Amino acid sequence: MRIRALAAAARRGELQPFEYDSPPLGPHDALIRVRACGICHSDVHMIDDDWRISRYPLVPGHEVVGEVVEAGDALEHLPPGTRVGVGWQRSSCLRCRDCLRGNEPHCPESRSVIGDGHGGFGDHLVVDGRFAFPLPAALPTEVAGPLLCGGITVYSALRHAGMGSGQEIGVVGVGGLGHLAVQFAARLGNRVTAFTTSQDKARAAEGLGAAAVVITRDGKVPKRLERPLDILVATAPAPLDWNAYVNLLGTDGVLTFVAASAPATLRLDALLFRRRRVAGSLIGGRAEIAEMLELAALHRIAPVVESFPMGEANAAVRKVRDNTVRFRAVLRVA
Amino acid sequence: MRIRALAAAARRGELQPFEYDSPPLGPHDALIRVRACGICHSDVHMIDDDWRISRYPLVPGHEVVGEVVEAGDALEHLPPGTRVGVGWQRSSCLRCRDCLRGNEPHCPESRSVIGDGHGGFGDHLVVDGRFAFPLPAALPTEVAGPLLCGGITVYSALRHAGMGSGQEIGVVGVGGLGHLAVQFAARLGNRVTAFTTSQDKARAAEGLGAAAVVITRDGKVPKRLERPLDILVATAPAPLDWNAYVNLLGTDGVLTFVAASAPATLRLDALLFRRRRVAGSLIGGRAEIAEMLELAALHRIAPVVESFPMGEANAAVRKVRDNTVRFRAVLRVA
Repeated sequence: MRIRALAAAARRGELQPFEYDSPPLGPHDALIRVRACGICHSDVHMIDDDWRISRYPLVPGHEVVGEVVEAGDALEHLPPGTRVGVGWQRSSCLRCRDCLRGNEPHCPESRSVIGDGHGGFGDHLVVDGRFAFPLPAALPTEVAGPLLCGGITVYSALRHAGMGSGQEIGVVGVGGLGHLAVQFAARLGNRVTAFTTSQDKARAAEGLGAAAVVITRDGKVPKRLERPLDILVATAPAPLDWNAYVNLLGTDGVLTFVAASAPATLRLDALLFRRRRVAGSLIGGRAEIAEMLELAALHRIAPVVESFPMGEANAAVRKVRDNTVRFRAVLRVA
Repeated sequence: MRIRALAAAARRGELQPFEYDSPPLGPHDALIRVRACGICHSDVHMIDDDWRISRYPLVPGHEVVGEVVEAGDALEHLPPGTRVGVGWQRSSCLRCRDCLRGNEPHCPESRSVIGDGHGGFGDHLVVDGRFAFPLPAALPTEVAGPLLCGGITVYSALRHAGMGSGQEIGVVGVGGLGHLAVQFAARLGNRVTAFTTSQDKARAAEGLGAAAVVITRDGKVPKRLERPLDILVATAPAPLDWNAYVNLLGTDGVLTFVAASAPATLRLDALLFRRRRVAGSLIGGRAEIAEMLELAALHRIAPVVESFPMGEANAAVRKVRDNTVRFRAVLRVA
């Protein structure tokens, strides 16, 4: 089968029509017809080869929603027509200790949708069907995509930082990731404080469930909050005053990074005195993705999206690159 | 009652005889006759006013073993003659959220033995008896002291980093704290790798239960270990190459600091990729202290001590300051 997609031919290239033959399906492979595909900052990083791992032609797209068209013999649970979502990960060994524990993203043989094959900016794609997740009926096709990467990234980070309910949870940055973190934390029964530089985003965060918003003008973080935080998830990739944020954590509080870039100089004594922690997290394992999708459907957690026809992919990518999307871009396939 | 002690009269002062009247005992106070008292680096920091919180005359000593001589009306569980240990903490409010959760060291009203009163370098001391811990019979008086501060510091850090059994645990630094961390981790069923700069300490660590030792010449940390670490406890207050140590952690691995000093510049991406954490910890709560003492008795975990008569306290303090004690100094009271 001939797949029609969009690809960057070289570093920082515009997306152009690109066709390729669907590879023969192995017993665990699934051919998926794409209905919608989110655009994540990681797509832009990969188009731009920011991580020096890109291979061209590069077909972006790893927040895919579509239907199974054909599935390998071993995929009895995915009959044709099953509506599924695909995120960052394309496959893993499923045998190593990390895989056996549900930590597939940390498998040494983890493969990504867009780094180790062609992604979802097209009419079809092929991935290991064990990394295609049946979608709850209550999740609309056009908004489900960003849950598969952006959603699981913040959900997994919050859970591994110890999120339960009844906690004080802070979210730094109200963007593609942050606006989902606010929703997951708030709808699952926590009190959320959002930190943003913008008045507009402050209002948006309140609309999404934040109980309090701190507008950090000139990067100034308050010296203390009335209620110390149990968890603070840092979704802004900017080099902020992380020591000031650590000071907002209560006993056993965790500052967790999901989008770190620059190294940070941290005061270790501030970690000792309230037994605080600094952590990092990347996407999430398969069990967590399934759980996150169910909870999103149950609690009506959904990305706020701007959608574009696939034909306007370049304009949409530009908006993501310029950080002007509120809050997540999605491409529709007719 | 007149208490005869040793005190520093001023910053960095030699210890000199110092007498004071025992304060009248409140309902929760206990007068304890001192039999032995460990010397901790924190005693030296307090003598030297390194933390700018010292008050003089300062009576050091917060690893105390002795017997209850007299106890307030509310201390029915501490009849005269009870052998007890006292550590860093003298009292706390016992009403706040931290206290109610067993996190007494993080109580805003936490008071220390030597920062908010007179310590154990003397024939007696008075503390809140709810912070005096009956000692299991199997713990000898002369070695029990260092468990009360050094022991609980590493035990609590290991537990809060998730120590169970069957794990890979690293210990950076084989000194007063490190030699206890090696023992707690190894005797409770974990495989321990010790990191030290010295051949002698490497041998000592092996003798105490370390399965492997890495000698870090010129601060060089190996690029990888055959078995990634679940927990790495940093007991050396020196500014080491912490990013290199983070790289030795496996998925969900924790680097925990118990004696941090200088701020450290950490690569946040290294935290994301294996969902690693950096944490800090200080002493431990009352429930943990009681648990740690029981386990030390049961598993024959004991500090390796050099003991000195109280009259040689100045010489002993000098040895602690010079880092030449193997591995913990204890003063005996005749």
